[in-house]
Amino acid sequence: MRRASGGIIVWLTGLSGAGKSTLAAAVRDVLAQDHAVEVLDGDEIRAHLSRELGFSRQDRETNVRRIGFIARLLARHGVIVIAAAISPYASTRDEVRAIARAEGTEFVEVFVSAALSTLIDRDVKGLYRRALAGQVKHFTGISDPYEPPLGPEVTVCTDHESIQESTAKILKALADRRVAISVELTG
Amino acid sequence: MRRASGGIIVWLTGLSGAGKSTLAAAVRDVLAQDHAVEVLDGDEIRAHLSRELGFSRQDRETNVRRIGFIARLLARHGVIVIAAAISPYASTRDEVRAIARAEGTEFVEVFVSAALSTLIDRDVKGLYRRALAGQVKHFTGISDPYEPPLGPEVTVCTDHESIQESTAKILKALADRRVAISVELTG
Repeated sequence: MRRASGGIIVWLTGLSGAGKSTLAAAVRDVLAQDHAVEVLDGDEIRAHLSRELGFSRQDRETNVRRIGFIARLLARHGVIVIAAAISPYASTRDEVRAIARAEGTEFVEVFVSAALSTLIDRDVKGLYRRALAGQVKHFTGISDPYEPPLGPEVTVCTDHESIQESTAKILKALADRRVAISVELTG
Repeated sequence: MRRASGGIIVWLTGLSGAGKSTLAAAVRDVLAQDHAVEVLDGDEIRAHLSRELGFSRQDRETNVRRIGFIARLLARHGVIVIAAAISPYASTRDEVRAIARAEGTEFVEVFVSAALSTLIDRDVKGLYRRALAGQVKHFTGISDPYEPPLGPEVTVCTDHESIQESTAKILKALADRRVAISVELTG
């Protein structure tokens, strides 16, 4: 029986606008030189697999579990999966981690941290302005909870680190955990 | 940039009880000796990713599109994906095929055919009896449509072929299409 090499799930959690997608792409671009990599973006997965779901706690948890299910399927075949999803509830992230680990898949939680005030100032998509005006219900950090990880494998602070610095932190954590990943650290 | 070898999607379509899951497992067991293989079972995917979906045409199509989405993700990384799902609508199957092929993934449609009368006679799970009694709504073949493929790559007739014969037909079709797959035909 052919056994695929164990993959790894890199789970980026954090507020909207904190830089999850940007970091996911940056990490992917480095790893993809030598590895099979797939980015699972929370918004994209919603569009493909969870269009009927809303933003209640239950629906958010369902979406996170679905991302976890697909991530595990891919990781089982040796793919490095980078999930970028707000995933606001600690218990749901821990559940995904526990199931992955039980299957022999490494799980690296990355807390993409940025001060809410910075995100409100930046507000690239204008979402915070609308949320603060009460025009977007269930907006994480404003009108919906976000539970920061208590013991993330990596924390990056995108409000005072460069993308290169944050990327390098994540790559180093992967290199520390997996002999197979040997990347040139550029940050 | 590392390019994974192109995978392949083997899509088993047919009525409930026709033998899709049995054949998927048999094909997997042979291929898994040398290849990365994943079976995506329609019922299992429903439980994980589509629990809120019912059996209307729209919901069935959504479930099939979701299986297709995951199948393509896996195939992109060189995995041989065997999907086993009733997938009753020809247009939805053709849509999945078209998207997969556009991405460079081979798609092999396998019509798992068996006479309805045979399935009603067998009725391993007792579902046909309940459907005929009107106790199961939207039951494919009884109270819901099934559109057989017009041009499937493989047709297996499980009401008068052995599992070994049907398995061998599918494996031969794969070997014909992909040099990388060299399997010992046992049927």
